[in-house]
Order: sequence, then structure tokens, then C-alpha cells
Amino acid sequence: MRFARLAPPDQDRPPFYARLEGAAALVYDRAPWLGGAPTGETVAWIELDLVCPVEPTKIVCVGRNYAAHARELGNDLPTEPLLFLKPPSALVGPGQTIVLPPDSQRVEHEAELGVVIARRCRNVSESDALSHVFGYTCLGDITARDLQRKDVQFTRAKGFDTFCPVGPWIETLVDPASLRVRALVNGAVRQDGPTAHMVWGVPALIAAMSRVMTLEPGDVLATGTPEGVGPLVDGDELVIEILGASDGAPGLGALRLPVSASAPA
Amino acid sequence: MRFARLAPPDQDRPPFYARLEGAAALVYDRAPWLGGAPTGETVAWIELDLVCPVEPTKIVCVGRNYAAHARELGNDLPTEPLLFLKPPSALVGPGQTIVLPPDSQRVEHEAELGVVIARRCRNVSESDALSHVFGYTCLGDITARDLQRKDVQFTRAKGFDTFCPVGPWIETLVDPASLRVRALVNGAVRQDGPTAHMVWGVPALIAAMSRVMTLEPGDVLATGTPEGVGPLVDGDELVIEILGASDGAPGLGALRLPVSASAPA
Repeated sequence: MRFARLAPPDQDRPPFYARLEGAAALVYDRAPWLGGAPTGETVAWIELDLVCPVEPTKIVCVGRNYAAHARELGNDLPTEPLLFLKPPSALVGPGQTIVLPPDSQRVEHEAELGVVIARRCRNVSESDALSHVFGYTCLGDITARDLQRKDVQFTRAKGFDTFCPVGPWIETLVDPASLRVRALVNGAVRQDGPTAHMVWGVPALIAAMSRVMTLEPGDVLATGTPEGVGPLVDGDELVIEILGASDGAPGLGALRLPVSASAPA
Repeated sequence: MRFARLAPPDQDRPPFYARLEGAAALVYDRAPWLGGAPTGETVAWIELDLVCPVEPTKIVCVGRNYAAHARELGNDLPTEPLLFLKPPSALVGPGQTIVLPPDSQRVEHEAELGVVIARRCRNVSESDALSHVFGYTCLGDITARDLQRKDVQFTRAKGFDTFCPVGPWIETLVDPASLRVRALVNGAVRQDGPTAHMVWGVPALIAAMSRVMTLEPGDVLATGTPEGVGPLVDGDELVIEILGASDGAPGLGALRLPVSASAPA
């Protein structure tokens, strides 16, 4: 099933969650991971804006989770998942602008598989982990590479407003180990890696993260980026796209994001 | 003014915000930084439990913000505020247990001044910063020192459940540069530092943090810890206390926290 968050373009109604079926959107009374249910109202979702489909209490990420990406940045592979957090204030949705901050001279794309948690959990076993997942989405871990190297701590480099695009929607019936994560800049493929190449797969990541912190319904996990990270500059268009691993297998759609040195008016 | 969050011991009513005046608590309809107002109901707060007085969307922290503490851990002073995040899942309130995780052999106390944000803000100037503060509270940045050294990234070491005690309440009319931050373990003073010794004071921290991320009403900032950090072991009682800088000057009260190797039943 495919879930989205929709907003009328004229903003006369707050954003709402909906289940997408073809051209129809079945309106939900609240987020499905918070017990939401259909209200009975159906709308044509093409007439509405897709907005960021998540509202997490936290965004838990992992660094260096694809060996080829760790190598391209000159890093060893950690012996355990290397966790960090992005703030919810960094979230944007489909079509929203990634704003390049004046404090960085080198902002890079990192395309990732995002995971949305279904229910509160703590100390989850790997074998039980996927039963705590609501669904999957495209996610960008946008990174000011110069500040990351300077600070050592990742928080500032990865925490700027607009540095966590998520969407366009959430797919629930997907095998997270059978996908391809791609980043395209101005139409050219820059990253294209199979999720089967993760050092720690989604079950191991959920086990490691929930060993530290209670995961809440709607929380978002970022699963690391494959090789091919590179710069974003003013005027670029970034597309984060997740495909099925084989031709014709269903994917997670594409998230299109303009890049600008100035915030939209 | 003093604001708290209160819960009946028998939990027949969800926690609510209130303004404390002597023995009376004036019940609020929602968090005061979200436009809450008195409902007209007054209760005797001594009959209720004080719970964690904040529900932030993020907890933004700074490392090495007292020179003597940076030295005691063998670190240079950063040239800019060194930012990191703690997850909201780490929050606990007065009297709640700090649980020592089995993955660490060395958990330490770091007593800090906590700042609660009043309204959404971004790119705040130092001169304007304090007008965006709702109030101040006692905060613990509990840290698994062995994991902090191993991971380099602070997230796991500082992100365990129960590693961010906050309370007992929030004081609104306080000069953040005229306080003394103390940690006591089993009654013995381990940390006792004046907030005037911060490398970056509260206005500079708000300017630096809001240059990266939009701060939301109710967000919590942690301002760094003075020297004297040390271990917590099973059975300890930690008190984080913030006093007025001069005798008799008002402080922020004391936050008492049992420490245990196992979660309370």
C-alpha cells in the first residue's frame, strides 16, 4: 500500500494523510502509524500537493553503511553501526528547495533508503525487526562536506534546514534488501547502488538503533548511502529515486528537489 | 514565573502544564510556549508528581563549552560551538531512574543549564537571542564515556534512554549568565561551575544553533558542562542543581535522580 501526505495548493486545509489507489486518495483521519483510519472521503490526489510524508520525533541515521562509499571518503568501515541524528527541522518534501547555506562551500547529495517505524519499540531482535516497520521511502542525507570534516561531529554538517528531503510517499509492501538507490543531478546518474550491498541491513540497523533508544511510531531511519556522492550547486535539480532491484519490480518513486543558494520567497 | 508539568500519582489524568505559585498550581490548557493559558482550575501541586517539564521536537547541545571541562577530557577548545543532538526519547523527569546500559562500562554525569525556546526562530542575532527564550531548567547530559571515545560521534554515547534528565521545573525570570551549575553524587559535590564561565554564553549559542536549524517553541538547548564530570554506578543518587550565583539569589531548583543498572519495574 502507498501512503502520502497531501495539501491543497491554496492551503485552505491543513495537510492530511491518505492512502493512494491509482488516481484516488483515501483520506485518513491521522497518520496511519498513530492508528489513523479512512474517513470515507476520497479525493483526486493529482489536484493536490504531495508534502513530506513523515512527522517523526527523531531521524536516526547510520554512516558508512556501504563499503564502496566508506572507501570513497577515505574511511574505514566501523565495527558497529555508526549512529547519528538529523533534526526534524531539516525535513522537506517533494518539490521543496534544498537551500545551500552560506557557511558551506561544498554541499553534497547522499541518496538513501528511508524506513518509517510502525510502533514504539526498544531492544528489538533482528529476526523481529521488520515487523516494526511501517514502510519505506526515498530520503536524502544532504551534507555540508567541508563542515563535516571541520567539526568531526556530523550534526551541523547534516543538520541544516532542508537537508533531509523525504518522499514522495511511503510504500508498505517492499523488501528493503531488493531495491536500488539512485541520485540524479540534472538528469545524470551520480549514485546507483543496490540495498543488498548495505554492510548492516535494515533488520540489523533496527536492532542496533533500538538497543540505544526507544523508537517511536513514525520515526524515520536513514540507512546510509552508496558510492558516488558529489556536489550540489545553485540551480541544480536533484532526484532521489529508489527502483526495484530487477526490471519491472516496484520501487518507491522519485523525489525531485530544486537546489538553490537562496530560500524560496 | 515557574512552570511545571504535573501528573496525578494514580495516572487517572494525563500530565498537564501549570504555573506554580507557592503551594498552588494554576492549570494550563497546553504548553505555555504553544499559546497555553490558565483554565481557571487550581490544584495543590504537592499532591501531584512533577514530570519532565518539556516535550521538545529536538534537543540541541554544545560540547566543550567550559574551558576547564575541555581540559579535563584532554580536548582543545573548538573555534566555533561544537553542536550535537540528543534524541527526545532520552528525556526523563524528576525522580525518574537513570538506567545504566549494559553496553557501557563507564557512564558519567554532566550537569548543565537547559534553555527552553519560546517561539519559532532562525538566524537569530546575539542581541535578540534572549527574547526567544521561554525559560531555564536543570539538565543532565548523561554520557557513556567509553562509547563516546570509541564512536567519535557522540550520538550513541549520549543518546540512550534516560540520558537526558530535565527539571524539576522551568523558571522564566532568570539571568542565564548569573547561575551556578552543580552535580552532587550521593550528597558529595562533584561539579560546581558558574555559567559566567561558558566559552559561548546563551545568546551566542542561540545565534550559532539557529544559524543551522530552525528552533521550535519548546525546543531544549543544553549549554555544556563545567569541570568535575565523573562516574555513576548502580545505586547512586545524582542531584543536578542550579543555584543563583550569589547567596540568596534565586536558582532553578534541584533534580534528584536515582541511578540503576536495571530499568524500574
